[in-house]
Amino acid sequence: MADESVDHRFASDNYAGAHEEVLAAMAAANRGYAVSYGEDEWTARFGEVARRHFGEQCEAYPVFNGTGANVVALQALLPKWGGVICAEGAHIATDEGGAPERVAAVKLLTIPTSDGKLTPELVDTEAWGFGDEHRAQPAAVSLTQATEVGTVYRPAELRALADHAHELGMRVHVDGARLANAAARLGTSLRELTTDVGVDVVSLGATKNGGVCAEAVVVVNPAGAPGVKYLRKMDGQLASKMRFLSAQLTALYEGDLWLRAARHANDMADRLASGLATVPGVRITHPTEANGVFAMLPRSVASEVRKRFSFYDWDRRTGEVRFMCSFATTAEDVDRLLDAIGRAARL
Amino acid sequence: MADESVDHRFASDNYAGAHEEVLAAMAAANRGYAVSYGEDEWTARFGEVARRHFGEQCEAYPVFNGTGANVVALQALLPKWGGVICAEGAHIATDEGGAPERVAAVKLLTIPTSDGKLTPELVDTEAWGFGDEHRAQPAAVSLTQATEVGTVYRPAELRALADHAHELGMRVHVDGARLANAAARLGTSLRELTTDVGVDVVSLGATKNGGVCAEAVVVVNPAGAPGVKYLRKMDGQLASKMRFLSAQLTALYEGDLWLRAARHANDMADRLASGLATVPGVRITHPTEANGVFAMLPRSVASEVRKRFSFYDWDRRTGEVRFMCSFATTAEDVDRLLDAIGRAARL
Amino acid sequence: MADESVDHRFASDNYAGAHEEVLAAMAAANRGYAVSYGEDEWTARFGEVARRHFGEQCEAYPVFNGTGANVVALQALLPKWGGVICAEGAHIATDEGGAPERVAAVKLLTIPTSDGKLTPELVDTEAWGFGDEHRAQPAAVSLTQATEVGTVYRPAELRALADHAHELGMRVHVDGARLANAAARLGTSLRELTTDVGVDVVSLGATKNGGVCAEAVVVVNPAGAPGVKYLRKMDGQLASKMRFLSAQLTALYEGDLWLRAARHANDMADRLASGLATVPGVRITHPTEANGVFAMLPRSVASEVRKRFSFYDWDRRTGEVRFMCSFATTAEDVDRLLDAIGRAARL
Amino acid sequence: MADESVDHRFASDNYAGAHEEVLAAMAAANRGYAVSYGEDEWTARFGEVARRHFGEQCEAYPVFNGTGANVVALQALLPKWGGVICAEGAHIATDEGGAPERVAAVKLLTIPTSDGKLTPELVDTEAWGFGDEHRAQPAAVSLTQATEVGTVYRPAELRALADHAHELGMRVHVDGARLANAAARLGTSLRELTTDVGVDVVSLGATKNGGVCAEAVVVVNPAGAPGVKYLRKMDGQLASKMRFLSAQLTALYEGDLWLRAARHANDMADRLASGLATVPGVRITHPTEANGVFAMLPRSVASEVRKRFSFYDWDRRTGEVRFMCSFATTAEDVDRLLDAIGRAARL
Repeated sequence: MADESVDHRFASDNYAGAHEEVLAAMAAANRGYAVSYGEDEWTARFGEVARRHFGEQCEAYPVFNGTGANVVALQALLPKWGGVICAEGAHIATDEGGAPERVAAVKLLTIPTSDGKLTPELVDTEAWGFGDEHRAQPAAVSLTQATEVGTVYRPAELRALADHAHELGMRVHVDGARLANAAARLGTSLRELTTDVGVDVVSLGATKNGGVCAEAVVVVNPAGAPGVKYLRKMDGQLASKMRFLSAQLTALYEGDLWLRAARHANDMADRLASGLATVPGVRITHPTEANGVFAMLPRSVASEVRKRFSFYDWDRRTGEVRFMCSFATTAEDVDRLLDAIGRAARL
Repeated sequence: MADESVDHRFASDNYAGAHEEVLAAMAAANRGYAVSYGEDEWTARFGEVARRHFGEQCEAYPVFNGTGANVVALQALLPKWGGVICAEGAHIATDEGGAPERVAAVKLLTIPTSDGKLTPELVDTEAWGFGDEHRAQPAAVSLTQATEVGTVYRPAELRALADHAHELGMRVHVDGARLANAAARLGTSLRELTTDVGVDVVSLGATKNGGVCAEAVVVVNPAGAPGVKYLRKMDGQLASKMRFLSAQLTALYEGDLWLRAARHANDMADRLASGLATVPGVRITHPTEANGVFAMLPRSVASEVRKRFSFYDWDRRTGEVRFMCSFATTAEDVDRLLDAIGRAARL
Repeated sequence: MADESVDHRFASDNYAGAHEEVLAAMAAANRGYAVSYGEDEWTARFGEVARRHFGEQCEAYPVFNGTGANVVALQALLPKWGGVICAEGAHIATDEGGAPERVAAVKLLTIPTSDGKLTPELVDTEAWGFGDEHRAQPAAVSLTQATEVGTVYRPAELRALADHAHELGMRVHVDGARLANAAARLGTSLRELTTDVGVDVVSLGATKNGGVCAEAVVVVNPAGAPGVKYLRKMDGQLASKMRFLSAQLTALYEGDLWLRAARHANDMADRLASGLATVPGVRITHPTEANGVFAMLPRSVASEVRKRFSFYDWDRRTGEVRFMCSFATTAEDVDRLLDAIGRAARL
Repeated sequence: MADESVDHRFASDNYAGAHEEVLAAMAAANRGYAVSYGEDEWTARFGEVARRHFGEQCEAYPVFNGTGANVVALQALLPKWGGVICAEGAHIATDEGGAPERVAAVKLLTIPTSDGKLTPELVDTEAWGFGDEHRAQPAAVSLTQATEVGTVYRPAELRALADHAHELGMRVHVDGARLANAAARLGTSLRELTTDVGVDVVSLGATKNGGVCAEAVVVVNPAGAPGVKYLRKMDGQLASKMRFLSAQLTALYEGDLWLRAARHANDMADRLASGLATVPGVRITHPTEANGVFAMLPRSVASEVRKRFSFYDWDRRTGEVRFMCSFATTAEDVDRLLDAIGRAARL
């Protein structure tokens, strides 16, 4: 078990608990009997909510977690011989224990990026070899919104990427574990970041934004991603008492909880980044556009702060670290961390 | 969505909601920050609870659902070229959308049974071809306790099966989605049905017995099932906010909730079976040893009852049907169903 | 290594060597440089040969062996969530080490048969659960022609099966490792057993019928089996110097070598079966319609004969054995075997 | 089909036919009956040959092709949750249609290299995260000898790599499609490049060096790579008439044909490289250590030469091209190519 004497609140957005409204919704869903595996009123309601966000044509499939959502989504998007173009640092490439390769039987075609974001030009470095059976056929582009380094794609960037992918016969997947944070930052609807710009499937996050254990595969373009119903089952992502997943998703996405929670997390990250920028020797390494702050800390400062706060070493070689904020972070939390960093920098 | 005008309470044990104590435990776990992916106090506590039930040597890994538990367990037990001997009607063979084959890359070697139960003699019908690479190598026996037709293996039967399997170099998996019901019926501890009789890995159920969405892979014999930690992740079964799964499991298994809930469900099944036995033209097809009642209903009776109650057609060709009871079933529920069946039989 | 003191000529049709014409064709193909991976003149020529047999629309893909052909064919025919209906004794189910499950990620839905042959009625016992994600979706019927027990489907039987499968939205695969033997027996063209009756994909055999190491995936209905080009590569079945596979296939199928070789093997099986029928205590268990003879031998006779001839125990429990004839079997070989069996029966 | 008007002899070493001695050995193996699937005298003999090269402890398994050899080898070396560290340009990463990921269920951890060669320092860039289930566990290093860009590892380099890998608990695979060329260049035995330096498994090439269709998985360290027998079958790489594969391998490796053929190919590459070095505007991009020559040609020269000779564009962006020599290349062939390039450069 982890060291209890340090403060874990900035290590990851899933170190936070669940939002009270989400837990209340689960409790409220515990009412009588309901047909299992998704033919229940809560799931029907989440379907409506999803259609409101992503368009009437969309299909929404609750799943348990992000790896599950991504695996199901990519399997649905790709032919059996397909490859997925993604950033080298994409969660699917670095953090899922090989699940995309092993469970979805997908080849990843990874591209180094400076800011976590793909561009049409970057995509072109891997979008070749069409028709050559020696090469896994590039069949989808997967991008993460907000990215793993806390940056955010603008709608025009997404549109350019999706158009380019579609022109090349590829489909577009968004790993939206933090899609809410991106929308909150940009002041857009979810739709403006997905349906409106040509995205085919979204892994819609909930857990990191106040959920207990729920994400959804949102098929924006059903013609392009058949069989999610079957894939979700065979990939072990079909919940029997699905109402309890759907209730979480509805709690977040029916009203504006998704937005409130994400905006708050973003604000806390802004506050942290602003404070850090004033600390001598500290350098912010990526624009703070979502709820994560990436910075270079002098190693002595990092060592000192680590005694009291846990955080991720993002790149051990360079000394880059990551602080995450969440719906639960308070201004006082941030100020206490800033205070600790400031003190360490002055040692 | 399903028809709301019929009563769904006997269709499946996962049509019931969650036990209030389970939901309360989840709410109680929503306290402050906790390291994600299992290094939290709730998961540590469930580990202790599991060791109390299954022995000090055991390792317990919470997962989301039964298919996930079975896939992880079988992958851990088998070499890459292994086959699993199981009953033809085993959940892994008939109800998981091919997940064992497709995700765990397992060959199933299925055996017809009359009562859902394997025996050493039945196992021998598939335990052959060792050393012959043309045949998937029989490497594990998987049995379901209680079985899919509501029967229960006695400790001596399990011991005989496990000894036989081990003598042949095979390991033993128990799909224990309803292990609690078996123990409740037999008046044994969980250990007497697993560790003490030589079982290597258990898929320990929780959802069907009052949980929200949690099961556990309990590795009784860690030497025989390496890598569960990694397999759980790559199979998409690692929860980020794992405390909320562990809290469910602890709520059920720390005290006697698992037993109370299962015993009640069994009692309700007994009540239903007793009542059915008196209805003319109805025949109970399997001994009612867990929480399911299997019976042959005259087709006219089935049609009539179906207008008000949903239940599973277990075998459409023969007319066999299944009624399931759960922790939530009441004596009044049972009596109302019996009344409906009785009336239909008298039409 | 195997015992050299016994005569191996009846154990299996792949204990024979290769036909001299096949080896000569390989030697003839060793002429200058040729583009690898199939863009060579020998492969183009085999493509023409295949189109002459199976129709202008067909595509033919040489592969190395039967397991490879079946795996590629099934992968091409099925969606990722598909299941294949086949006989319990089908080669894909019993003799490929789990390759269909593990490499093609296919669920097999197996059906007991008395004579190795499926019928529409038998197919119906597994063709259900369409739309239910808990069940691997029945998506293809795979039948073996000639069957594993040496029986042969008639064109009308095939037509009925294919029509039934297609009506249910399923496709039809023929494992044609011994398709030539079936055609030779029935006096039909290959087309009358495949294209004309609605088969979608054929695993076309060559090795057992005088080849060295070649089979072909013949896609009779290209719209129904996309991506064979890519699947063949990723399944490890794409030969770099493909001309040497294509030369074998052309040697067999351009002229009538396929037919001569198969007819001879069938004739030898007939001779053997006729002789066996006169031996007291011996019972032929399946009609001898291809190049295999299946018979019940008294155990004492089997033991005695085994000292001098190797053959397969087809069913150890019943004492059923199998003798295979090939293009290389001579009448003298058969008579010598019959003599040995006759003597043993008179002991 | 490919354009027949251009000369294909420098495009790839598998555009050449087979060595006459290899074909003769296949013809000689066509003698009588032999037990199938490897229990024959030719396979036994190749086993002896392999043990002479790689040590008494080794096991040798003939397979059909290089992708098959690599997939079987990696599957044998890795736990189900393993990752393979390899060069970004490794054949397994770029040229096998995703077979390692899809069939062997392996995650590739790729590393950019300047010369195709890994070093312990490079390995360290991916050899981390041991014990962290979010990361595919680095479990083997796979290197190609000679590399995909025609460079060759020295024994000391291999020893350093293998020692480093083993210290980190990883195993070592050599993709030896052109191992013979490396040994020929260095004047070492095969053993000095494998067994003696700590390699665990070798994919031993034959096809590119004069074979028809054969490679072998040579398990140098059987304790480290269990189950090859079973994996070969389930991966579709088990030949029924295996004598014809074993005869090829024995023809090459029993005497010195492997060495003669490889040395000749290397010599021709040397001749070509020497000639190219004198052509104005041409730059050799990698040391010519095996049978491939990599060079930057002015685009106008490349266009002109391409009218008469086919060759690979190695890197379309930079204009780097590849010429391959083989056992069949003649000095006249080389001079004719050089002449064409020289003329084009003077245009």
